[in-house]
Amino acid sequence: MRQSKLFLKTYKEFPSYETSKNARFLIRAGFIDKLSAGIYNLLPLGFLVIEKIKKIIREELNLLGCQELLLANLHLKKYWQKTKRWDEFDVLFKIKGNLEEYALAPTHEEVIFPLIKKTVFSYKQLPLALYQINTKYRDELRAKSGLLRNREFIMKDLYSFHLNNEDLERFKKRVDEVYKKIFNRLDLKTIKTLASGGTFSKFSTEFQVPTESGEDSVYLCSNCNLAWNKEIIKKEKCENCNKDLEVYKTIEVGNTFNLGTKFSEIFEVFYLNNKNQKNIVWAGCYGIGITRVLGAIAEIYNDKNGLIWPESVSPFKVHIILLFSPNSQKNNYLFKIAENLYHKLCLYNIDTLFDDRTNVSNGEKLFESDLIGITYKIIIGERFLKSKKLELVSRKNGKIKELKINEIINFFKSKK
Amino acid sequence: MRQSKLFLKTYKEFPSYETSKNARFLIRAGFIDKLSAGIYNLLPLGFLVIEKIKKIIREELNLLGCQELLLANLHLKKYWQKTKRWDEFDVLFKIKGNLEEYALAPTHEEVIFPLIKKTVFSYKQLPLALYQINTKYRDELRAKSGLLRNREFIMKDLYSFHLNNEDLERFKKRVDEVYKKIFNRLDLKTIKTLASGGTFSKFSTEFQVPTESGEDSVYLCSNCNLAWNKEIIKKEKCENCNKDLEVYKTIEVGNTFNLGTKFSEIFEVFYLNNKNQKNIVWAGCYGIGITRVLGAIAEIYNDKNGLIWPESVSPFKVHIILLFSPNSQKNNYLFKIAENLYHKLCLYNIDTLFDDRTNVSNGEKLFESDLIGITYKIIIGERFLKSKKLELVSRKNGKIKELKINEIINFFKSKK
Repeated sequence: MRQSKLFLKTYKEFPSYETSKNARFLIRAGFIDKLSAGIYNLLPLGFLVIEKIKKIIREELNLLGCQELLLANLHLKKYWQKTKRWDEFDVLFKIKGNLEEYALAPTHEEVIFPLIKKTVFSYKQLPLALYQINTKYRDELRAKSGLLRNREFIMKDLYSFHLNNEDLERFKKRVDEVYKKIFNRLDLKTIKTLASGGTFSKFSTEFQVPTESGEDSVYLCSNCNLAWNKEIIKKEKCENCNKDLEVYKTIEVGNTFNLGTKFSEIFEVFYLNNKNQKNIVWAGCYGIGITRVLGAIAEIYNDKNGLIWPESVSPFKVHIILLFSPNSQKNNYLFKIAENLYHKLCLYNIDTLFDDRTNVSNGEKLFESDLIGITYKIIIGERFLKSKKLELVSRKNGKIKELKINEIINFFKSKK
Repeated sequence: MRQSKLFLKTYKEFPSYETSKNARFLIRAGFIDKLSAGIYNLLPLGFLVIEKIKKIIREELNLLGCQELLLANLHLKKYWQKTKRWDEFDVLFKIKGNLEEYALAPTHEEVIFPLIKKTVFSYKQLPLALYQINTKYRDELRAKSGLLRNREFIMKDLYSFHLNNEDLERFKKRVDEVYKKIFNRLDLKTIKTLASGGTFSKFSTEFQVPTESGEDSVYLCSNCNLAWNKEIIKKEKCENCNKDLEVYKTIEVGNTFNLGTKFSEIFEVFYLNNKNQKNIVWAGCYGIGITRVLGAIAEIYNDKNGLIWPESVSPFKVHIILLFSPNSQKNNYLFKIAENLYHKLCLYNIDTLFDDRTNVSNGEKLFESDLIGITYKIIIGERFLKSKKLELVSRKNGKIKELKINEIINFFKSKK
């Protein structure tokens, strides 16, 4: 993509109306736009990061044998009355339509259990794992943390259905492992944390990212590598080894839940076993907050100059920055070198943003590039005239390699 | 994908509660599930088709230089009051939240114009074309046509912004051409139709697919290749050549609209020209109903046995159907052949559904395969034992080619 064509507006200052680091950086760097409290538009750069997060999640869940679908977001009131959550789910958006009353989906148990009741009858159809990536809506009273707590957000929700609790617990363990892998690929160091299981089971599992601005608190035993959410902690020492627990402020980016038979009982979801006997279906649900992941990454990966994207989710793999020479006669030549490099990278399908703008100063280009935070930048300028080498710069640590054009191409080809 | 693992429930009968052909076929074949009037879940097969439609649209719009983003769906009341559409947009879902009142997006002018006001200032930033693929919500009183008129649906909406009306009209013509190309790739023969421009301009352009069950009527002059929507027709003869017009019932799958300066005036969207003078921004909007396209294809491409997917959007490219031999000793051998073929097709990234089920009769497998309607099927059975050839069958016309395994692989490789 040529930066001269990119729909991008960055700002010299942080937005005064935002207090959270993630929103301040993401708005200033042109990734998102605030529409109202807890509600944001994803601009092209933000959209690209979200697509990369989605791709990683899809790859890992599909490998696990999960199947993707898309559930509706307008749910008739009757489904939510059946679970009593029409009245009890405190952040539920309710809609009085012309003919019907609806809940605007904050989660999808009320839709997927009736679907399973209609479609699953036999033990031969189980286990079954279905997921979607969809917008969700929650009428949060407090929506002040940028992308960390929104009224409208993108979530991956997976639901699994099983013959019995043992099979469900086995699958939940596998999801826990896959989640670790997903968060590793997203460069998020998560603490796997025991939390309340709500009304469903004793414990749920949360994936918590330590950061000062987190709304959650996690108590970790570094000895046993076990952690507990503040809400269920009993003492400040490890239950196993009695070591003092370390406390972290954290952001919850994912959770895995054993729902037991709660919703299956309400919606009467049964299967016939191999003796033709009716049994209740056991179920789990597993969430990853996708816009929240975007927020968590922005919250953690930044410095005073801007964002620093992990390579796996960087909106582009590389940012070519063409700096003009004070000897203006050389500029056409430098432009040709940059064009040529851009075409070659595109040819090898390497996501490239090319700052081809001629009406912007070198200083502004470098400033904006740091703000956007693409993992690698290639700087083409004065120095090339002498050495015939380009500077490959890591946004993370500023490390510079001087490489010939074909060496640069090979560097990025080897990353595919 | 192995069919033994696929989340798929087909039905022997059409659903009694649906009158429209598209919903009757799509539900019976397990592509969608009806949640309530005008609201459907996309099951894995339906989801795959939608993803293919989206991919085609994205490829063509990106080629045209359009950029993708994702706009929020919860819009503060004040934006919709500003355009007077809070009261005048008759299918608007309104939400009374805890703290705010919202419109639930039926379209996005109320959000994108304020965004452009915040980000576009100079003639150098124009023209600009931004699109999204997002869920939309409209509280339709009459929602009886399956996927053709829904309360919740997926739409691609593109908005373009220009220096003047000439540039806007030029761009609109290019979108019209790109739309033709998109619908051709989707195997939808569309009639480009003049329709009312509403309060914005004299005419808009609609892309109408002729089919008996369509809700729209189009008058076509086959001589001049011009067409008019019923709503603007003045006489039953062509305005150009006086030939009698042909009338078609149609489904509108896309439209392109010159919005003029209407929304720019309301939201005060201006740019500075090269003389630093303030000018109003001209804008267009361009829609494609993605779930409606799914419905239109299902409505048109079917026969008494089921759906018949155009190759470009078939949920899988090919369906391997393993039929068991009456000589059961040969079945292990046939299974190995089928497995081998399946692995080879997967290796070449050819989307394959493999009916590997051992507990379903040959008749049921063939019946279900026709119902699902994947473009090609490969039948492995008795006949292979003698000829060492497989049957490659076109779902569309039943044409059979007998091919060796490597010939089949080459046939599909050549399609990549």
